[in-house]
Amino acid sequence: MLFHVHMRVALPGDMPAETAAELKAREKALAQALQQSGHWRHLWRIAGAYENISVFDVADNSELHELLTQLPLFPYMQIDIRPLCRHPSSIHDGDR
Amino acid sequence: MLFHVHMRVALPGDMPAETAAELKAREKALAQALQQSGHWRHLWRIAGAYENISVFDVADNSELHELLTQLPLFPYMQIDIRPLCRHPSSIHDGDR
Amino acid sequence: MLFHVHMRVALPGDMPAETAAELKAREKALAQALQQSGHWRHLWRIAGAYENISVFDVADNSELHELLTQLPLFPYMQIDIRPLCRHPSSIHDGDR
Amino acid sequence: MLFHVHMRVALPGDMPAETAAELKAREKALAQALQQSGHWRHLWRIAGAYENISVFDVADNSELHELLTQLPLFPYMQIDIRPLCRHPSSIHDGDR
Amino acid sequence: MLFHVHMRVALPGDMPAETAAELKAREKALAQALQQSGHWRHLWRIAGAYENISVFDVADNSELHELLTQLPLFPYMQIDIRPLCRHPSSIHDGDR
Amino acid sequence: MLFHVHMRVALPGDMPAETAAELKAREKALAQALQQSGHWRHLWRIAGAYENISVFDVADNSELHELLTQLPLFPYMQIDIRPLCRHPSSIHDGDR
Amino acid sequence: MLFHVHMRVALPGDMPAETAAELKAREKALAQALQQSGHWRHLWRIAGAYENISVFDVADNSELHELLTQLPLFPYMQIDIRPLCRHPSSIHDGDR
Amino acid sequence: MLFHVHMRVALPGDMPAETAAELKAREKALAQALQQSGHWRHLWRIAGAYENISVFDVADNSELHELLTQLPLFPYMQIDIRPLCRHPSSIHDGDR
Amino acid sequence: MLFHVHMRVALPGDMPAETAAELKAREKALAQALQQSGHWRHLWRIAGAYENISVFDVADNSELHELLTQLPLFPYMQIDIRPLCRHPSSIHDGDR
Amino acid sequence: MLFHVHMRVALPGDMPAETAAELKAREKALAQALQQSGHWRHLWRIAGAYENISVFDVADNSELHELLTQLPLFPYMQIDIRPLCRHPSSIHDGDR
Repeated sequence: MLFHVHMRVALPGDMPAETAAELKAREKALAQALQQSGHWRHLWRIAGAYENISVFDVADNSELHELLTQLPLFPYMQIDIRPLCRHPSSIHDGDR
Repeated sequence: MLFHVHMRVALPGDMPAETAAELKAREKALAQALQQSGHWRHLWRIAGAYENISVFDVADNSELHELLTQLPLFPYMQIDIRPLCRHPSSIHDGDR
Repeated sequence: MLFHVHMRVALPGDMPAETAAELKAREKALAQALQQSGHWRHLWRIAGAYENISVFDVADNSELHELLTQLPLFPYMQIDIRPLCRHPSSIHDGDR
Repeated sequence: MLFHVHMRVALPGDMPAETAAELKAREKALAQALQQSGHWRHLWRIAGAYENISVFDVADNSELHELLTQLPLFPYMQIDIRPLCRHPSSIHDGDR
Repeated sequence: MLFHVHMRVALPGDMPAETAAELKAREKALAQALQQSGHWRHLWRIAGAYENISVFDVADNSELHELLTQLPLFPYMQIDIRPLCRHPSSIHDGDR
Repeated sequence: MLFHVHMRVALPGDMPAETAAELKAREKALAQALQQSGHWRHLWRIAGAYENISVFDVADNSELHELLTQLPLFPYMQIDIRPLCRHPSSIHDGDR
Repeated sequence: MLFHVHMRVALPGDMPAETAAELKAREKALAQALQQSGHWRHLWRIAGAYENISVFDVADNSELHELLTQLPLFPYMQIDIRPLCRHPSSIHDGDR
Repeated sequence: MLFHVHMRVALPGDMPAETAAELKAREKALAQALQQSGHWRHLWRIAGAYENISVFDVADNSELHELLTQLPLFPYMQIDIRPLCRHPSSIHDGDR
Repeated sequence: MLFHVHMRVALPGDMPAETAAELKAREKALAQALQQSGHWRHLWRIAGAYENISVFDVADNSELHELLTQLPLFPYMQIDIRPLCRHPSSIHDGDR
Repeated sequence: MLFHVHMRVALPGDMPAETAAELKAREKALAQALQQSGHWRHLWRIAGAYENISVFDVADNSELHELLTQLPLFPYMQIDIRPLCRHPSSIHDGDR
C-alpha cells in the first residue's frame, strides 16, 4: 500500500555541526536500508530546498507510523502524508 | 529531468455528462500515450480525492509546459509543480 | 485499518429541492448500509455546520477510495483524510 | 455531550530528555484514567505525526476546559475543538 | 452553556430582491423570538460588514445545532463556533 | 462604543513561574477593575484554549488603545479587534 | 475618530455595462460628497488593482457602518477595517 | 509618488529594556524628521496593536527602500507596501 | 523605475471561444507594442500555468496603473505587484 | 533553461555583526561571479524588504539545486521557485 510523503527538514540554527553531521549520516544509512528493503520506494530531492518527495510501500498505517517516527531527523521534519491508490489511467499493474 | 506535478480536477457542476465522459476518455488516452513514451513516468490517484500525483520526465521547462497544457482536462485543473533532482541518499542512478 | 475523514458538504444554490432530497436519501441509505457492514465505524455531525466527522475501517487505501467516491454527495463534498493508528496511551486493543 | 479534539504536540527542542519522559508518563497515566472514567471516549494517533484525534464526553464546556488544561502536555499543544452532535444518518442511539 | 458564534452572510447576487427581503424578515422575526426566549443572548453587527457576533445560551450541542440550522439565512452563512466558559478573572457569576 | 476583542496569550516557555504568576495576578486585578468601571463589559474564556473573547465599551479608538496596551500580558498577546454597532434585529436598546 | 478602510471591488462578470457604469457614477458622486463633508478624509487607488485605501473620519462605529453600507458598490466589495488613533511619533495634532 | 506602508513591530522578548528604549527614541527622532521633510506624509497607530499605517511620498522605489531600511526598528518589522496613485473619485489634485 | 508584476489569468468557463480568441489577440498585440516601447521589459510564461512573470519599466505608479488596467485581459487577471530597485550585489548599472 | 527564484533572507537576531558581515560579503562575491558566468541572469532588490527577485539560467534542475544550496545565506533563506519558459507574446527569441 502506497503513501505519498513530503518531508521538510529544518535543523535548529544552533545545532553543533557534528551533531547535524551525525544525524544526517544515520538518516542516510536508514533511508538506504529502507530503500533496499522496498519500504521506501521513491526518494527525490526538491530542487533548491531542504525537502524531499517520497513514496512509501507499507503493510498498513501502523507500519508507516513506525518507519517515519524512527527516522533520526523526524523531530526536525514537517511531514505531509496522502494515501495513494492505483490511478484508472495508469498503465502499470497494481498501485505501481 | 524530473518534475513533481500535483493535479486537482474540478469539473463545472453544469457540464453535461457526455461532455465530461468524452473529456475523460481523451485525457485517459493521452495520459496512457505519454506513459508509454516515458514522459509521464508515474501516475497515482490520491485516495478519496479527484487529484493525482505525477512525475514527468521531460527535456526542459518548455516541454513540460507543452505536455501539460495540451491535456484535455487542463482548463479544469489546478496544477502545482516542483522541480526534482537526485536525492543524495537515493540508491538509484541519476534522478530516478 | 482506520482513517479519519472530515466531510464538508456544499450543494449548489440552484439545485432543485427534489434533486437535493433524492441525493440525501440515497446518501443516508448508503451511509447506514456502510455502518451496518462495519466500514463506516463512526459518524458525527459537527454542531452548526453541514459537515461530519467520520472514522472508516477499510482493508486498504483502494477500498477507502471506492467507498468515498461512490457516495451520492461525493461531487459536492470537500474531504480531508488522515490515516490513523493505535495511540500508545489508548486502553483499547488494536487501533480501536 | 461530545467534542472532537485535535491535539498537536510540539515539545521545545531544548527540553531535557528526562523532563520530556516524565511529562509523557504523567500524560499517559492521566489519559488512561480519563479513558477509564469515560470522559476521553476515543484516542487515536495520526500516522506519521505527533498528533492525536480524540473524542471527549463531558457534561459541559467547563468540564471540557478543565480536563484539557490539566493535561501535563497542555502548554505544548495546539488544540482545535469542534462540538459534535448526533448525525441524522447515524445508526447509533444518542450522540454515539 | 454559552457558545460564541460568528456569522457571515453572503446572499447570491442573482437572488430576487423580494426573496431576499422575505428571508431577512423571517430571519429577524426568529432572531428576536430567540432573544426573547433567552437562547440568543447577545447579537451585534460588525461595523462595515454583513456579519454578526452572537452569544448563544443552550442546553447542549444538539440544541445549538437545531437553533442555527433552522435560521432562514443558514444556507447563505459561514458560521464559526467556539465553546465558552467562565473566565477566572470575570466578576460575573456562572458563565455570564 | 463597543469593540469585539479576541485575545490569545502565549507566554514564553522559559519565563520563570513566579514572573508568570505575578503577571497573571496583575492582569486579573486590572481586568476586574476595568469590569467594575464598565469599560470591559464582557469577558469569557474559550474552552480548551488560553484565549478570551471580550467586549469593550470605550469613548473612542484612543481609549481602546490605552486600555489594551496597559494590560500586563499585552506583550504576550495576539489581539484581533472588530468594531461593533447595534444589530437591526437586536431587541436591546443602543448597542447593548 | 479615524478608521483605515481597504476596499476591494469585484463586479460580477455578467453585469451589463450600463448597470456597472450607473453604479460607478453613483458611487463617485457619493464618494465626492463624503469627501466634501469631511467624512471620507483620504482616498487613494492602489496601482494596478481595483482597490482603494481610504481613511474615514466618523463620530462612532455606527456612523462608519451607515456610511459604508449605503455605498452603491457595497454589495460588490470586500472591506477590511482597522481603527486608528494618534501615533506617539506623529508631528500632527490629534489623530490627523 | 505615494506608497502605502503597513509596519508591524515585534521586538525580541529578551531585548534589554534600555536597548528597546534607545531604539524607539532613535526611531521617533527619525520618523519626525522624515515627517518634517515631507517624505513620511501620514503616520497613524492601529488601535490595540504595535503596528502603524503610513503613507510615504518619495521620488522613486530606491528612495523608498533607503528610507525604510535605515529605520532603527527595520530589523524588527514586517512591512507590507502597496504603490498608490490618484483615485478617479478623489477631489484632491495629484495623488494627494 | 521597475516593478515586478505577476499575472494569473482565469477566463470564465462559459466565455465563447471567439470572444476568448479575440481578447487574447488584442492582449498579444498590446503586450508586443509595450515591449517594443520598452515599458514591458520582461515577459515569461510560468511552465504549466496560465500565468506570467513580468517586469515593467515606468515613470511612476500612475503610469503602471494605466498600462495594466488597459490590458484587454485585465478584468480576468489577479495581479501581484512588488516595487523593485537595484540590488547591491548586482553587476548591472541602475536598476537593470 | 530559466527559473524564477524569490529569496527572502532572515538572519537570526543573535548572530554576531561580524558573522553577518562576513556571510554577506561571501554571498555578494559568489552572486557576482554567478552573474558574470551567466547563471544568475537577473537580480533585483524588492523595495523595503530583505528579499530579492532573481532569474537563473541553468542546464537542468540539478544545477539549479547546486547553485542555490552553495550560497552562504542559503540556510537563512526561504526560497520559492517557478520554472519559466518562453511566453507566446514575447518579442524576444528563445526564453529571454
